[in-house]
Amino acid sequence: MVTDTSRAAEAHVQGLSVKDLAAEFGTPLYVYDAEAITRQYQELRDLLHARLEIFYSFKANPNAAICALLGSLGACAEVSSLAELTTARRAGFSPDNIVFPGPGKSTDELIACLDAGIAALVCESLDELALIDRLASERGVTARVALRVNPNFSVKGAKLVMSGTSRQFGIDQETLLAQRDLAARFPSVRLIGVHIYMGTRVLEERVVAEHTGRILDAAEQLAAALDFPLELVDIGGGLGVPYFDGERALDPAALTALLNPLVEKFIAGHPRTRIIMELGRYLTAPAGTYLTRVRYLKESRGERFAIVDGGTHHHMAAVGIGSFVKRNFPMRLLNRTATEEDQAWNIAGPLCTPNDTLGRKVALPPLRVGDLIGVLQSGAYGPSASPVLFLSHGHPAEVLVHEGRALLVRARDGIDDLLGKQYSYDFTSADGRASAG
Amino acid sequence: MVTDTSRAAEAHVQGLSVKDLAAEFGTPLYVYDAEAITRQYQELRDLLHARLEIFYSFKANPNAAICALLGSLGACAEVSSLAELTTARRAGFSPDNIVFPGPGKSTDELIACLDAGIAALVCESLDELALIDRLASERGVTARVALRVNPNFSVKGAKLVMSGTSRQFGIDQETLLAQRDLAARFPSVRLIGVHIYMGTRVLEERVVAEHTGRILDAAEQLAAALDFPLELVDIGGGLGVPYFDGERALDPAALTALLNPLVEKFIAGHPRTRIIMELGRYLTAPAGTYLTRVRYLKESRGERFAIVDGGTHHHMAAVGIGSFVKRNFPMRLLNRTATEEDQAWNIAGPLCTPNDTLGRKVALPPLRVGDLIGVLQSGAYGPSASPVLFLSHGHPAEVLVHEGRALLVRARDGIDDLLGKQYSYDFTSADGRASAG
Repeated sequence: MVTDTSRAAEAHVQGLSVKDLAAEFGTPLYVYDAEAITRQYQELRDLLHARLEIFYSFKANPNAAICALLGSLGACAEVSSLAELTTARRAGFSPDNIVFPGPGKSTDELIACLDAGIAALVCESLDELALIDRLASERGVTARVALRVNPNFSVKGAKLVMSGTSRQFGIDQETLLAQRDLAARFPSVRLIGVHIYMGTRVLEERVVAEHTGRILDAAEQLAAALDFPLELVDIGGGLGVPYFDGERALDPAALTALLNPLVEKFIAGHPRTRIIMELGRYLTAPAGTYLTRVRYLKESRGERFAIVDGGTHHHMAAVGIGSFVKRNFPMRLLNRTATEEDQAWNIAGPLCTPNDTLGRKVALPPLRVGDLIGVLQSGAYGPSASPVLFLSHGHPAEVLVHEGRALLVRARDGIDDLLGKQYSYDFTSADGRASAG
Repeated sequence: MVTDTSRAAEAHVQGLSVKDLAAEFGTPLYVYDAEAITRQYQELRDLLHARLEIFYSFKANPNAAICALLGSLGACAEVSSLAELTTARRAGFSPDNIVFPGPGKSTDELIACLDAGIAALVCESLDELALIDRLASERGVTARVALRVNPNFSVKGAKLVMSGTSRQFGIDQETLLAQRDLAARFPSVRLIGVHIYMGTRVLEERVVAEHTGRILDAAEQLAAALDFPLELVDIGGGLGVPYFDGERALDPAALTALLNPLVEKFIAGHPRTRIIMELGRYLTAPAGTYLTRVRYLKESRGERFAIVDGGTHHHMAAVGIGSFVKRNFPMRLLNRTATEEDQAWNIAGPLCTPNDTLGRKVALPPLRVGDLIGVLQSGAYGPSASPVLFLSHGHPAEVLVHEGRALLVRARDGIDDLLGKQYSYDFTSADGRASAG
């Protein structure tokens, strides 16, 4: 998180000047503040009921150092691919503290989960359950499986609702309730829990609590109906962060005041059940800044444009692809004092598409070539959720500032990274046959 | 282009069975048909006025083998990044046949263009012109520059209009017309041409012709007003391909019947001017198939879902992010005969987001686990325009079928490709300082 300078001076991260970071590591650059991640995690952790465990959703920011940092703070791991599982293991997460959801797991991924002995494979279809059973049987192990349920209810208040209607995720609640013999049909599977995910980007404490209450009830009902021990309930997550004007950050005190009694009541009846909350965006988004440098300034028919060196290919979320109305992420001038009045600036990237616009009519002081523009709240769903190969520009560098030191945690792609896995051929050779070249 | 099987048998590409390709190279897989690319290029080339040159827009599909294939057919190169310029040079494109547009070129990119001596740097702002002049002067060379113009007119009919209003691209036509001394102000720049790009995905021959006529007129007017020799006019391109129901492919005969007389008339007054058309999507899109395999089948509240091994991370265009209404790309069952009646299938990928839906209610025969589903018309803006790192799944393999042989042109990302450029640290070390690990 960059210090908000109120435009009075250049910005810093833990005392390191953003200008120096840009000079040392180049731009465009993602800068993550380990203190901000730690603070965001710890503030919630300290207030949250001790029995509600935090699992970090790697997909929000899969960088190995970010994952390791959260592991060192005590977070567990929610992963959804072989590479994420590998990252978790290398970062020292115990298999006991790893869950793996995902609607389309490969056989290799399932086998890796079985071999590692993770806390729970979160199973999303009856087809998958049969496959897990077969693979576990072949290996002579018993698979620990939590059922992902597509609930027959939904709660308003998530930006992206992920339940309540027909879905690619999980198994319909009513389908499961009709499968009373499920546990018996798959002898190499041990059903141990339930996973329900209601939706993402929730910014109302009341909605998170309502989700949680209904999920805990549904889990209890399902385990009783299917007669399996409820060792684990994953209540999903979906805690949002404010990106746009008018959005308010969740208040951890207000949130936990509503959540903790629900947990307390639940464990009274289920003293040994692990209760899991998945958090991704909430933990890392506020700690990240996408740093770009102004390359060219221009006016076109009365509008100001600053062409910067970064864009859609690194930060698709800021560009707002997928939203009908483009709304601007918070953006700041970070390299210098500016006392002039703000103007309306279009901040566009280097790509050859009009979609490559980081901000439309953003209020910023008069800009100069070489200025550093930061897109704030950018620590989640950044490069890993963006088309980094578009126009063959490649992945930006990423830096984690930890205890006053800037650690390079991801090197920038060079030409060899971009082209090294391609093979070309000589299509002009005399015999008319392509030959490797 | 896969043979349309009308569901009567398994599909083939130049006699190679798609099933065998999937078995050999794995899925998800992009399969490109060199014959289809050649046919699409040659059909238009044969009909097009000989003086209208085709420049391949690398951004549509930057794979080195695809670029080399088009180069071997006689196409020139339109590139927009250092990596694309490198690809062009390695593939044997002569600098004389390379142009480089882009609103945010880096100093390194400009220097590489000057050093290579390409046909034209397409300059998009007065700031950039000043920088080009300075860099050329430092190197003791004269930069060959075409001005990208943001015209003060637009023509209806493009899916994505890129001119006529305030824009990040080019320099406003009226601004340029007011700079009568422009050529003189930058002594190390030689103005040689004009580039205008009206918009993309045009599917009406009449619109392409109208664009072309107005661009040629505007280029003539500008060169006369600014008193530079018109050695090159880049009329952009924007030729579309049909993706959705109700769209019709451009007819090369009808198109060239309208275009060629415009070219003929123009060269009568400008016998030595190069006239350039940029083609990307038009050349490669019809030749590509995105091949995915069904992993799981399920029903949810009356809807059928096939969960396949590919998705948004490889083919964002099919998912329709950025469009308000999701429309399906053409999709086919490719591995077997199916005589049953079609059903409505949702084809979803392995990602943990509801956006990961390749097709909604696609008409397909009853599906089985292991079936191969192809997304057709997928040879442009595929993996390079998609978030390949999302959930750390990585880039798919790409195969080019050339003269009956399947050539691997891009290897699939493995764990080391995905994690190799990340650095982690031990945040639990005794002295409280992170150490590289």
